[in-house]
Amino acid sequence: MDHERFRQIGHQLIDWVADYMENGHDGPVVPDALPGDVLRRIAAHAPQEAEPPDQVIEDFKTLIVPNLAHWNDPRYMGYFPCNHSGPGILGELLSAGLNVNAMSWATSPAATELEIAMMRWLGEMIGLAWPGTIQDTASTGTFCAMLAAREQVAPINREGYYGRPPLVAYVSDQAHSSGIKAARMAGIGDAYLRAVPSDAQQAMNVQELARLIKEDRLAGRVPFFVMATVGTTSTTAIDPVPEIAGLCRREDLYLHVDAALAGTAAILPEMRWIMNGVTEADSFLFNPHKWMFTNFDCCAYFCKDPMKLKHALAIQPEYLKTQHDASVENFRDWSPQLGRRFRALKLWFVMRMFGVHGLQEKVRSHLKLAKWLSAQIAAHPRLHLWREPTLNTVCLHLGNRAETEAFMLRLNDTGKVFLTHTIVQGTYLIRISLGQTHQTAEHVHQLWQLMNEQLT
Amino acid sequence: MDHERFRQIGHQLIDWVADYMENGHDGPVVPDALPGDVLRRIAAHAPQEAEPPDQVIEDFKTLIVPNLAHWNDPRYMGYFPCNHSGPGILGELLSAGLNVNAMSWATSPAATELEIAMMRWLGEMIGLAWPGTIQDTASTGTFCAMLAAREQVAPINREGYYGRPPLVAYVSDQAHSSGIKAARMAGIGDAYLRAVPSDAQQAMNVQELARLIKEDRLAGRVPFFVMATVGTTSTTAIDPVPEIAGLCRREDLYLHVDAALAGTAAILPEMRWIMNGVTEADSFLFNPHKWMFTNFDCCAYFCKDPMKLKHALAIQPEYLKTQHDASVENFRDWSPQLGRRFRALKLWFVMRMFGVHGLQEKVRSHLKLAKWLSAQIAAHPRLHLWREPTLNTVCLHLGNRAETEAFMLRLNDTGKVFLTHTIVQGTYLIRISLGQTHQTAEHVHQLWQLMNEQLT
Repeated sequence: MDHERFRQIGHQLIDWVADYMENGHDGPVVPDALPGDVLRRIAAHAPQEAEPPDQVIEDFKTLIVPNLAHWNDPRYMGYFPCNHSGPGILGELLSAGLNVNAMSWATSPAATELEIAMMRWLGEMIGLAWPGTIQDTASTGTFCAMLAAREQVAPINREGYYGRPPLVAYVSDQAHSSGIKAARMAGIGDAYLRAVPSDAQQAMNVQELARLIKEDRLAGRVPFFVMATVGTTSTTAIDPVPEIAGLCRREDLYLHVDAALAGTAAILPEMRWIMNGVTEADSFLFNPHKWMFTNFDCCAYFCKDPMKLKHALAIQPEYLKTQHDASVENFRDWSPQLGRRFRALKLWFVMRMFGVHGLQEKVRSHLKLAKWLSAQIAAHPRLHLWREPTLNTVCLHLGNRAETEAFMLRLNDTGKVFLTHTIVQGTYLIRISLGQTHQTAEHVHQLWQLMNEQLT
Repeated sequence: MDHERFRQIGHQLIDWVADYMENGHDGPVVPDALPGDVLRRIAAHAPQEAEPPDQVIEDFKTLIVPNLAHWNDPRYMGYFPCNHSGPGILGELLSAGLNVNAMSWATSPAATELEIAMMRWLGEMIGLAWPGTIQDTASTGTFCAMLAAREQVAPINREGYYGRPPLVAYVSDQAHSSGIKAARMAGIGDAYLRAVPSDAQQAMNVQELARLIKEDRLAGRVPFFVMATVGTTSTTAIDPVPEIAGLCRREDLYLHVDAALAGTAAILPEMRWIMNGVTEADSFLFNPHKWMFTNFDCCAYFCKDPMKLKHALAIQPEYLKTQHDASVENFRDWSPQLGRRFRALKLWFVMRMFGVHGLQEKVRSHLKLAKWLSAQIAAHPRLHLWREPTLNTVCLHLGNRAETEAFMLRLNDTGKVFLTHTIVQGTYLIRISLGQTHQTAEHVHQLWQLMNEQLT
């Protein structure tokens, strides 16, 4: 592909993306594809000779697009928002055009220093004056936190686990599965990961946490890590971080706070309270790629003392040494991966082109829509609102699992909305997760109308 | 930013990227920035109100671009290629426009099935009929392999390490630092990661490997994982995979093959021999983001038996369950992260728009340039060629470290080239790593001329 051809097709595709953002696409929010539908239409072998780009783009439009879930459709309310934006996409485009590897300061000074600055901006926006780095996802961030905690309590990197008493980690029974995955990868094992019971609001029960820690210590095990969740995946419940932090301080345990989805809400003064106690923790993360209009992937990871993280993750082979290593941050030492994309660029674009007020306005509108919708549900004779929503996620049921599940499937089958489910304390719940960039009252009203239609 | 404004700026930026690819940029290949130069020019706080996009783009051009290392400049010959291409960039643009999360089949069927197909295409191109997935980087891929191996030898996920004999992993003393990092993260520890001595060609000494395994077994330790390297980072040395595989089979050890850089060369019939023995291993990876013109990040990870990998990494919380789980691949179960970018799209664009022959032609030209350059060096009275290069990397020295290092710094200070170093078996070497997308004989001739100028 010569440069002229690139230019020509690039212009076409910018228009395609603009149209897609503006008008969505024809067809359901989530496709009704069956396993294999797409695979059988893809050639079995790579072509030997170059194919015309127009043909590839045509196949993209006819085969790929109709068989994707449209995560940025304002009617997509499944899982969690994964919202993008014009500025985010433009940042990704330039990042792809440059294609630098931001592994070390020296391998792209501006990428590293923009990352430092963007983490400062983000920190200030949510009231956290800690340094930070951009990880790909919250799964990786939580894993990093656990490694930092592990290394703080025992020199596993150097000596391994052999001959040590078991290390024990604590998360609530509502915590994201990334906590379990981190404990497995780090070699802790399910047997030494405690799922602390949650209370009626799905928040971690701190008395239970204290009891479990005591029990483990008495048995000769070594508690080392607690993860508190601000905004659980199922119901956006909020663990009592100040109490957990107090306990962790007394017990000398590392505390990580996972606010992957919810953290963005802290940019609103009226929601800043969700950060209560966080400054007493050791690390904190949230994902601008979820609810802050920044393309996936972009997880903002903050830590009070980066030395703990670097102690766990830094490696300095000869071929990576550079002149300025002593006086710069090499962010490869803050993450499992060596190679790193230039993710700070899209964050810079998003924060500057929206402005803090622009971001706040969007997030505030989502919270307002969640309130409105939950009020309708609460007032409805046949629908049961699970809890008054604190954030963007409204959970409901119909009294029993079969009816609830059937209702959700009917809604999804219309192709006009997409919702997902969870099970909390034995109850099967439909989750309505708001927060798409271009989602307005109109979309939520349409959902409500659809819900009423599908109930009867 | 409204849709019209997005469209307008998008067109501008496509032109900027096209110009950047075509004409490069003014200024040195790698900037002479000092730590803090960029940071002090970035505003201390996020703006409260939206700023005009034109201002942001202007700052991008004047502050960011001049302070980046230009990894895709044909004169950038440091570290390893991290090459992109028009098709790769266009794939990234559309991936950003869609911004789907390819964590599960159901969360984007076309993304999952295109990934399956692309891994088949890639596998066939290098002679490997294994299923695979796209990881972000080789560091992650190697870590996944180690976790699969670990879980095969002991149920660490469930039970943790407590009470077990030490597990021992083996890599060559020339292996990439990702092997060490993986062993640390997985809780093996440096004490139980053996750096097997390499021979005069920097390839793993299989007798030494056998001896170490025997020694560990005799001491009651449990060998479980061997990583062979095809194309080491320092000098692109190639471990004797067939012999290592034979030993691993006899010893019942998991064998992972890291060909992060070199794997792309296997698309050439005349270089296919580098894959010898790989089908006897358990997993294999190479990075299309290094040398196959596919934007970063994109690591092709193949495994003989995906059940081993899934056994190590799969987690199924209620909120992720979907209707088709039993009959589809959910690639979140193949990687540490839950969230996943739609990376298969750019691979599809690259393979179709280049064609296999187009890719082969480029890679072949790089190998030819490496041969030409090494011949010049070998014939030069003052330069010492380290080894006849097998791949894209030419290593040399000037007889002693001080002179060699000073020579490299002089070359880099011209701003007309960028090279990096390594130390191998006590010798400080300059590495010349070829493989940029638009690199031609002209660029290598210019380098040679520059080397001659800077020698005198």
